[in-house]
This record gives sequence, structure tokens and C-alpha cells, in this order.
Amino acid sequence: MKRLPVALDAMGGDHAPQATVQGAVEAAREYGLEVFLVGKENLLRKELARFGTVRGVHVVDAPEVVSMDDPPIAPVRQKKESSMAVALRLVRDGLAGAFVSAGNTGAAMVAAKLILGTLAGVDRPALAAPVPNISGQTLLIDAGANVDCKPRHLLEFAVMGHFYSHLVFGIPSPRVGLLSNGEEEGKGDKVTVAAYELLADAKLGFVGNVEGRDIFAGTVDVVACDGFVGNVVLKTAEGLGEMVVRLLRQEAKRMPISALGFLLAKGALSSFKKRVDYAEYGGAPLLGVRGAVLIGHGRSNPKAIRSAIRFAHRFASSGAVAAIEERVSRLNHEANGG
Amino acid sequence: MKRLPVALDAMGGDHAPQATVQGAVEAAREYGLEVFLVGKENLLRKELARFGTVRGVHVVDAPEVVSMDDPPIAPVRQKKESSMAVALRLVRDGLAGAFVSAGNTGAAMVAAKLILGTLAGVDRPALAAPVPNISGQTLLIDAGANVDCKPRHLLEFAVMGHFYSHLVFGIPSPRVGLLSNGEEEGKGDKVTVAAYELLADAKLGFVGNVEGRDIFAGTVDVVACDGFVGNVVLKTAEGLGEMVVRLLRQEAKRMPISALGFLLAKGALSSFKKRVDYAEYGGAPLLGVRGAVLIGHGRSNPKAIRSAIRFAHRFASSGAVAAIEERVSRLNHEANGG
Repeated sequence: MKRLPVALDAMGGDHAPQATVQGAVEAAREYGLEVFLVGKENLLRKELARFGTVRGVHVVDAPEVVSMDDPPIAPVRQKKESSMAVALRLVRDGLAGAFVSAGNTGAAMVAAKLILGTLAGVDRPALAAPVPNISGQTLLIDAGANVDCKPRHLLEFAVMGHFYSHLVFGIPSPRVGLLSNGEEEGKGDKVTVAAYELLADAKLGFVGNVEGRDIFAGTVDVVACDGFVGNVVLKTAEGLGEMVVRLLRQEAKRMPISALGFLLAKGALSSFKKRVDYAEYGGAPLLGVRGAVLIGHGRSNPKAIRSAIRFAHRFASSGAVAAIEERVSRLNHEANGG
Repeated sequence: MKRLPVALDAMGGDHAPQATVQGAVEAAREYGLEVFLVGKENLLRKELARFGTVRGVHVVDAPEVVSMDDPPIAPVRQKKESSMAVALRLVRDGLAGAFVSAGNTGAAMVAAKLILGTLAGVDRPALAAPVPNISGQTLLIDAGANVDCKPRHLLEFAVMGHFYSHLVFGIPSPRVGLLSNGEEEGKGDKVTVAAYELLADAKLGFVGNVEGRDIFAGTVDVVACDGFVGNVVLKTAEGLGEMVVRLLRQEAKRMPISALGFLLAKGALSSFKKRVDYAEYGGAPLLGVRGAVLIGHGRSNPKAIRSAIRFAHRFASSGAVAAIEERVSRLNHEANGG
């Protein structure tokens, strides 16, 4: 398989284009990857010049920029020459192997669906967020692309998450759980109860219902849920994490002895932070579209961009897209009594 | 208003009857409250004897015990003489002012609904969990009593949470948020979008949609959601909290300098722990039934029981039950064009 470059939306993210250009340079230098830096050419060349000679990073001009306030439809309607749209067309036309953006998530998802198209048999492409757990990461899918999902959609999410976990994270036999309000079969809302049946029939490592605490316990590799719930779960975890840090800081200020302790504990904290750092996991893949698409956090720093480029490349060469399409088609075939 | 005793299911919870009896004794001694200790008389008298003379704690015999494995219907069907059922009948018959149990949550909820009855106009009683936030607590309602809720139910939850927050926690004008996957109006699944309209009309401090992170940010006092989502949120927070503690311990073991730091930081940690300790908030009220019902955590220690008895008493004398019934009836009246 030809190693195609990764097309990076160099204008997307809170710290673009500094963070995106630096991340691309690091990916090229450290992993020997090829990257298309897509965005305002003059700006990007100026940024790039700071790094001296860089092999493997190629600037592709795109005069427009999708902002965080633009509607999701912008890249395919008002801003067809945006970095997001141009980078996606490079993938569609077979010139790039994968797409990475840390920009407007809604716009990136809609543009990827419309420009690349959805895989045969997939009804709802979904965002899969890698969440750190005690021993590695759990893939939470859907993390916010779809609301009001039907049981069939949860099955699709499980299939897609299973293949990503297996082929990109390299987990031999991913354990797949269905997020519910109790472990017993029969627990859940109507959609979840019906999805349980479909998942039990489909096999693919289904371990049954799991609860919110399982996401961090390392008891499963993939957790399937509606995107409404997935979004709430991720934001809840983010909010709790922020509160813990703020409270510890407050306490540390109040007491001299624990202030000292807090400082000393930083060795542990920074090592811990590395364990739970989203930047290590390279962003959230949008699964179910015709291509390897990775959506980074808006706050992505160069390390997060570098990591996203690396995972995007791995995703593109993993065969996960083809595997998902093949398996989902087979499920449809079976569902139709074939 | 006569200060009626609190009826405590003395057989409920992982550490019953030791923790329940001790918690009741402490509540009587420290707050001057009256408590009915309901359960196996011989067992309870033996436990109680350990504390010498105690004023205000009265043993009421109940020969049966609802276990964690019993079906939710057990206290009203197979085990009518269980501590749970007997304690609830004391409330129903006007002999006790409130009910507290740290036992089988599903059974306690079903029994409370069936023995006490539901308030006029309330379709779905809901569990309201106080969640610690950066500056106090957020009341998450429904925390798991109902799944497949309709927009009307989310409105009821908001009304009930508003009055509990105001009358029991003493918050002058509680801010009420609707849990969604984005703050903008129009964000959410179908049920949430429709509930938004109802909440906007009902006023009662509605601040609009809130996200998962707001639960811990202290930006709202009440967060209304479907019980499926509420359960997942609580379990997610629990799981993340456990992971953080485990990872910090692992790190502390690995590095001598940070092990020291970790020990020193314990001053901060224990003070932090107090801030996020569920035992401080006295359990989750079941709102919408005819009486003050508080469900404690299964792991309740004496302090949690003591605190639950105190909040149950406060709940009973707050007028919250009557205020909820009056307001929900008025909403029904308005909804019917009255």
C-alpha cells in the first residue's frame, strides 16, 4: 500500500497555525511521515520557515478559514475553499490518505460526511473518543455526532469501534460493552434494551451492559452509546477533572504543609497527567465515512497534532475503513435474511 | 408542626445494623432528633446497648429483611414485614415524619411509591442526587429512578429539584439547568429540545441547557435529566474518582520523592475528601411521593446515616412535599388551559 500523506487542516484549533505547523514538522521528523499543510499559504510558509529545512511537509493553499462560529455546513456551502474543505478533497481524490482537524468539530464532521461520503451500509457515522482508563484506553462511541439513535445505530457504533480498537490500537480481541444504567440484561431504556439483542447476535466480543464506572475501569475496550449520552459523559469527566485540580490547588494554598506536599507530589501528578492526556491518543476518529478522519481537541498543542497525524496515518494504513464497510454490509445482509 | 420521629430502615446498607444504629444514636445525641430504629428487635437492642443510655431512639420490630438481591417489589409483596415496609407504613400512618434507607435502592423506591403513594399531578417520582461542586452541591434529578422520560417528566423533575434545593438546602433562588449536549437552545435529543420549551415557560430559575461539566462547576443548583443519563453521569464520576485515586497511589509507590509528596499532601486530600464526601449530603431524596424519603448510599457509614437522618428531618419539616404538590398541580392546570 502506498504511503499517502496526511492532509492537515492547518488553520483549525485554538493554537493554529503555530501548533499545527509545529505538530506537522515533528510528525515528519520523528516518524518520517508526509504531511500536506493545508491553509493560507503565506502564513504557513512563514511559520514553516522557523524550522529550517523540513522534509515531508508540503504546503497546499486554501484561502478561506472555517471559524468556531461558522455553521457546520460552512465548508461545503459558504467556504468551499477553506482549509477544511480543501484538505478533505485531497483525501477524496486519493492524493492524501487521511484527514486531521482540530477546528470546528461540527463543521469537520459534516464536511467529512458530505465530501468523502458515508460507507455502504452505514447509516450514521460516529465519533469515537479514546478515554484513558486504568490500564490503557477505552473507546467511547458515539461521543457526540448523533442524537436520538435507534438500536441499529448502536450496533453500527459497536462494530466500528471494535474494528478501530482492533486494527488501530492493536487490541487482539476487543471487549465491547453497551452503556446502560445497570449491568443485568434487561436494564436500560427501550433503545438500549433492543440494542442488547442485536449486539448479542452480532458477537464481536460483546460482554453485555456496562455502567459509567466501567469506562475508566479498564474492564472493556469499546463502549457503545447514543451520542447525547456520550457527549454528557465526556463533559462530565472533563468537569470533574477540572474541579479536582482546582480544589487541590485551593487546599494547597491554605495549608503550608500540604502546599509543600502538593509541590512535591507534582512528580507524581505530571506522570499521572501523561497517563490521562488526550494528546497521547491522537484525537477522535470519525468512523463510517470513506476515509481516515481524525478530529483533534480544539485546545490541541503541537504534541497533540503530532500524535493525531501519527494515528491518522496508522488508521489509514490499518485497513479499518474497508473492514468496517465489509462487516456492516454483512450485518445488513444478515438482517435482511440473506 | 409536630416534630415526628424519622423512621430508619435499620437493616439496610452494607454495614447494617452497626452503622445504622450508631448513626441513629449520633443523630439523637448531636441533633436531639427522635428516631425509630426499624428491624430485628433482638439484634437492634443488642447493638443499641453498646451505647449506654440513649434518649430519642426507639426500636420497632420488623422480622424480615430485604436483601440486595430481592426484586424491587419484595417489600410490598413477599416481605411485607420487612424493616423497609414497616418503616414506610409508620410514615404513611402519620407516626413518623420521614423515611431513611441505605438498603436495596430499587426496592426502597418502589415501596415508597406504593406504600406512601405519589403526589397529585406527579407522574414520575424521581431520585435527586446531591453532587459536590466547586462551591457547594448540585442536585442532579433524575439520578436513576426513571428511563424513557417524556418532556413533561423532565419539567416535573425540574420543579421538584427546585423546591428541594430552595427549601431543604436553603438556596434563595435556585438556578435550574437542563442537561444537554450543548448550551445553545435547540441542542439536544428530541425529548430535551421539547422539555426546553416547557421549562422556559415554567420559569422557576431556568437558565437553559447545561453540559456535563456544569454539574461540577457550580454554575447551576439543579440539573434535570432522564434517569438513564443521570445514572450514567453518577457512575462515570464515581469511576473517574476511583481511577484518579488508584493512579496517584501507583505513582506514589513508584517514586520515593513523590511518595513523600503524596503523604504530605494527605492534609489537603482529606480536606478535599470532606468536600466531595457523599456522607456530608445525607443521601438522595426520592421526590414526588407523599412523604420525606431519603435513600442513602449502600456503603453508608455511621456519619452518612446520621447525616441522612438530619436531612430527612429537615426535608420533613421544610414543607417541600406540599410545595411540590401545589406547584405541580398548578402546572397541570395551566397545561390544560386553566
